[in-house]
Amino acid sequence: VNEAWPSESGISATIIELERAALDRWCGGDPSGFLEISAPDVVYFDPFLGHRLDGFSALSEYYESLRGKVSASRWEMVRPLVQVVGPEAAVLTFDFHSWGGDEDAMRWHCTEVYRRLAEGWRIVATHWSFAAKG
Amino acid sequence: VNEAWPSESGISATIIELERAALDRWCGGDPSGFLEISAPDVVYFDPFLGHRLDGFSALSEYYESLRGKVSASRWEMVRPLVQVVGPEAAVLTFDFHSWGGDEDAMRWHCTEVYRRLAEGWRIVATHWSFAAKG
Repeated sequence: VNEAWPSESGISATIIELERAALDRWCGGDPSGFLEISAPDVVYFDPFLGHRLDGFSALSEYYESLRGKVSASRWEMVRPLVQVVGPEAAVLTFDFHSWGGDEDAMRWHCTEVYRRLAEGWRIVATHWSFAAKG
Repeated sequence: VNEAWPSESGISATIIELERAALDRWCGGDPSGFLEISAPDVVYFDPFLGHRLDGFSALSEYYESLRGKVSASRWEMVRPLVQVVGPEAAVLTFDFHSWGGDEDAMRWHCTEVYRRLAEGWRIVATHWSFAAKG
């Protein structure tokens, strides 16, 4: 056993905690939490985009256009799962429910691919999409 | 240089070719192409699902329910990109346009995470979603 090597459950907890902290800021209108954990070569999909965004600079520009505009009073990360893929990759997937006010919950699917760098785990690919009802 | 170790461009070409071959069968109503390259722990999202599907058995059941029902006369994988993440992971992202008949193109975003196994590259996470127009 290499004691310096985190267990899969340790990696899982680390990744989920990183994501929760970034989501918490995101839902208060602050995209910097995600920017701080995004890799230079990050790619990004969401349902409002016609095509993939490539690279930190494009993602940063997009996130800045949303600063202060996202608000969720309550959110839930549903059944987060981390798949460790070799020594340098981890894939976090979860369903996400958020509530902005009186309306029904927004329902999303999310995939986040993380790469292990010297400075910590960083996102290399994000995919947000709408889930079906029910 | 380790001659036995494929270059990033070699990995990229291999992954894109695997995906194209599976898509070609998928668009003719045959999900077996994807099943043959899916890992036991594969997870899956698409816009028709309310939550994530976990594992080969759940995905296989879902795909079998679609056998013979998917048909696209023409499709295009737009700007496929492969990010190699350590020795065992590769992330393929692309926009996807498909045409079924007279109607407008369907526009999708797709993320596929592959894991390198002894038998070859296998999908561990798939995420399909609708893209915005334009």
